[in-house]
Amino acid sequence: MSTETTGEGDDRRQSFWAWGWADRLPTDEERRELKSRIEGMLGFPERPLLDLPTLDDVTLAPPRVEPPADLSCAATTDKRDRVTHTYGSAYRDLVRGFHGQFDDAPDVVAYPERESDVQAVLDWAAEANVAVVPYGGGTSVVGGVECDGSGYAGVCSLDMRRMNDVPEVDEHSRAARIEGGATGPEIQDQLADHGLQLRHYPQSYEFSTFGGWVATRAGGHFATRYTHIDDFVESVRAVTPAGTLETRRLPASGAGPDPNRFLLGSEGAFGVITEGWARVQPRPPYRAKATVRFDDYWDAVAACREVVQARLTPANCRLLDSNEAMLNEVAFDGSSVLLLGFESTDSLSPIEADLDRAVEIAEGHGGRVSEGPTTEDRTTDADESRTGDADKAADGSEANDGDEDGDSGEWRDSFVEAPYMFNSLVSMGVLVDTFETAVTWDQFPALHDAIQETVTDAMEEECGAGFLSCRFTHAYEDGPAPYYTLLAPADVGRELEQWRAIKEAASDTLMDYGATITHHHAVGRVHRDHYHEEVPEHYLDALRSMKRTLDPEGIMNPGALL
Amino acid sequence: MSTETTGEGDDRRQSFWAWGWADRLPTDEERRELKSRIEGMLGFPERPLLDLPTLDDVTLAPPRVEPPADLSCAATTDKRDRVTHTYGSAYRDLVRGFHGQFDDAPDVVAYPERESDVQAVLDWAAEANVAVVPYGGGTSVVGGVECDGSGYAGVCSLDMRRMNDVPEVDEHSRAARIEGGATGPEIQDQLADHGLQLRHYPQSYEFSTFGGWVATRAGGHFATRYTHIDDFVESVRAVTPAGTLETRRLPASGAGPDPNRFLLGSEGAFGVITEGWARVQPRPPYRAKATVRFDDYWDAVAACREVVQARLTPANCRLLDSNEAMLNEVAFDGSSVLLLGFESTDSLSPIEADLDRAVEIAEGHGGRVSEGPTTEDRTTDADESRTGDADKAADGSEANDGDEDGDSGEWRDSFVEAPYMFNSLVSMGVLVDTFETAVTWDQFPALHDAIQETVTDAMEEECGAGFLSCRFTHAYEDGPAPYYTLLAPADVGRELEQWRAIKEAASDTLMDYGATITHHHAVGRVHRDHYHEEVPEHYLDALRSMKRTLDPEGIMNPGALL
Repeated sequence: MSTETTGEGDDRRQSFWAWGWADRLPTDEERRELKSRIEGMLGFPERPLLDLPTLDDVTLAPPRVEPPADLSCAATTDKRDRVTHTYGSAYRDLVRGFHGQFDDAPDVVAYPERESDVQAVLDWAAEANVAVVPYGGGTSVVGGVECDGSGYAGVCSLDMRRMNDVPEVDEHSRAARIEGGATGPEIQDQLADHGLQLRHYPQSYEFSTFGGWVATRAGGHFATRYTHIDDFVESVRAVTPAGTLETRRLPASGAGPDPNRFLLGSEGAFGVITEGWARVQPRPPYRAKATVRFDDYWDAVAACREVVQARLTPANCRLLDSNEAMLNEVAFDGSSVLLLGFESTDSLSPIEADLDRAVEIAEGHGGRVSEGPTTEDRTTDADESRTGDADKAADGSEANDGDEDGDSGEWRDSFVEAPYMFNSLVSMGVLVDTFETAVTWDQFPALHDAIQETVTDAMEEECGAGFLSCRFTHAYEDGPAPYYTLLAPADVGRELEQWRAIKEAASDTLMDYGATITHHHAVGRVHRDHYHEEVPEHYLDALRSMKRTLDPEGIMNPGALL
Repeated sequence: MSTETTGEGDDRRQSFWAWGWADRLPTDEERRELKSRIEGMLGFPERPLLDLPTLDDVTLAPPRVEPPADLSCAATTDKRDRVTHTYGSAYRDLVRGFHGQFDDAPDVVAYPERESDVQAVLDWAAEANVAVVPYGGGTSVVGGVECDGSGYAGVCSLDMRRMNDVPEVDEHSRAARIEGGATGPEIQDQLADHGLQLRHYPQSYEFSTFGGWVATRAGGHFATRYTHIDDFVESVRAVTPAGTLETRRLPASGAGPDPNRFLLGSEGAFGVITEGWARVQPRPPYRAKATVRFDDYWDAVAACREVVQARLTPANCRLLDSNEAMLNEVAFDGSSVLLLGFESTDSLSPIEADLDRAVEIAEGHGGRVSEGPTTEDRTTDADESRTGDADKAADGSEANDGDEDGDSGEWRDSFVEAPYMFNSLVSMGVLVDTFETAVTWDQFPALHDAIQETVTDAMEEECGAGFLSCRFTHAYEDGPAPYYTLLAPADVGRELEQWRAIKEAASDTLMDYGATITHHHAVGRVHRDHYHEEVPEHYLDALRSMKRTLDPEGIMNPGALL
């Protein structure tokens, strides 16, 4: 068992270095199993089983600033608070945490409970030249919440998680007002009282927050139509150093550049998202799904393209290449696997017709149906959404296909467990990372080949071996959003250097082939240089001038995005 | 026949004062028919048949500036060019044109043929303190292209219509590169060579341009999903006084605030949209449609809401209230009429199932199917899109329901002809205007009642009578986009004063009830004050700082938006 487990019951803690809950850190037995699997399946050289770190091993510099005694909300310089607010949850964060490196820990962690507290922290920070880093679930994988504080008197992490209410629900229009610090499960629980759900399930769902999703343009489980949180947002309210701004709650508007879109993706650089209205819906009791296998990856890609270009809008349209299918234990025969799923809150026959046509298209490209088509009508247990089952039903799992069995069930388990597995991998010297993008269909083949080559070469060069897999998380009429996972045997102590070289190869290739540096992982600090390459220089100038207007002292999350 | 008809064959001219082609100005016979209809159906007092104006009656002040002799493109101070570039196509524009008032005519009209010409005009204008007004089809109904030029040495209208190519098509990803000055029919013709269509049909389709659509966030024919041009745009290229910016062609991205969204709705205030990539599709040969009548308007509203909240995404989901149904000669029995239509490029059965379910929902709310459900499979004449028929098929008509007969056919004819009818109405002293908005479902009943009251009262007070009708042009899960048409007997000579009072009543009511000042008519100068009320003050400050960065001399379309 982990040295972090507190056994304090309700006071369940997140690990100070790893993804997720401290009481879910890997046991030695789990690690041994994974180690043999990695060595066997991927042929990696023998991996060490390193000891898990303890907080006692961590040494922090004393805080450079103290919160003012009369601050309206709780604020602390406590070691554990500072340590747990230093990083996000990327591989490089886990590695640094694992090795006890917390040089850039924030000096202060503040816990606002209402909007006036947020304003008070910003006022103090602007006065005292303290950088403010808005913090939600701490699940950034792009350095979104880490800040070295150079040029500032100190750094304050602004933990929004005490602002976690859903204070208002408009059942008629199907929308809810959600506070910025509410996590996925907290939103789910509060909406369940109204028989509603947000149905936005990023992989970080268990910990990440509504405000964080808006600030980073998070991607959810829908493969089409409702891909980003952007598609759910009716209005946003934010506190900036210049004051509060709130957009009008509207289903749509054509009045000038969309003000919501300035805050979506703003990554804390302009202000703090304190709340917003989001579109919600009942739990969809109708499901239709099928799994299709292809011998040839490019046939599967063609099928996927035809399905979305036919505007069939599946909730799930996840194409796993053969490596991804193997890694997730969905197929070991070299097949590529297309998981198709449709859902409806209203009726079965339209999505049944959609699925039938999607399967027909897939078969037309040489696909073999390995499961389904099956349909489901769960109207009889619709009350589930009002009971404890809702948690189970929507723990990011239902997210993917709404079912428990078969290929898509396997896939779902992997999806939810993946970040926990990363903890184990780090602790046995395995370099593990993911990167994702979006690109037009015509560019995808060249990009994909180039990624295979440059990233595999970089892993070979840095680590002597490597494994790369790809899935489509989302698919658009004009192109897919491919998501790559890489694994390589790292030299313990040199992990960051190795990671950097591999990441650079991947990011450079994305830029060279006209892809985006990120489809839903955001920019943060890790993607900043490539982001600046991706968007027009004059646009960046315009963003900088906006920032100067809203954040004249430049205290908001310096180094992120801009 | 009109005094404007030139009979010069190819050199077909737009009217200098009215909507559309000079050779389609109303004949006296047409006007007499309309006059008796207006007096009979609406009970208006007898209307005069005023003489149509001629260009000879118009007197212009001499131009304040001359284009430089060495400008790289054509530029002129010719009277007809200046007159035809003075206004958009709103009621107040037609009235002023009709009465020969062109006080704010631009001094120069420039006709760039390539991007370097645009840059040359902007360079000259910045140097000479000349305001530049980007001009597409001249179809703005919000004063988007009119500029009084005070504080400037002069005004240059930048007519983009010579940049009208579709130079590149990516059939695999279904996207096309379109120049900013290409009109709806020009885009249609060039895409037909590839068997593709944009399928974005604003009512102004015949004259408005791609760049204008992007700059004003134009609304098209799809009632759901693809409602604004925003939804089609992959990338945008614009020339600003600070230089050229071009966003990357991507199906989606999560990297920072979306740069396309800064140019969508920018209304020429930051720069000139010279081209962009837009998503296109084949002509959809599969259609399914039905017309449903309701005795009670609120039942029809409830049905419409349930259809879109079931996520059935009809291409057409147009709800006409009883006045709108009468005005468009669809129903005279006091019914409200819901036109439902689905289309697919791929197959019939999914949309057939969608329509069946939509009809079932409508019937559940007391609707009676008056036409259909009917389906169509036009795959046998799919080649139409490559022939001259394409023009006919997609002249903004097919836009609405893809069919020629019955209720929806009546409706379609009215839609296309409506702006031409406005010409006649202006010429017989009828005040005619439209305004549109979007609002959440829970607010719609209160808003609708208030609009009925305030606008009808204003018409009574100003004109002694008035007629108001409403349709939904678009419908969202969280609210409708109602579109109001008003008609009132005007006092010739006092029309603008009367119009202003009625418009103010409508706009104030929209603001009071949490609606947007415009769903797809843009802000321009007419909506500017209410727009500033709608969006947060700090956001406007941020937009102004962006403008200062991209347009440091403030020459771009001054007075529009900001």
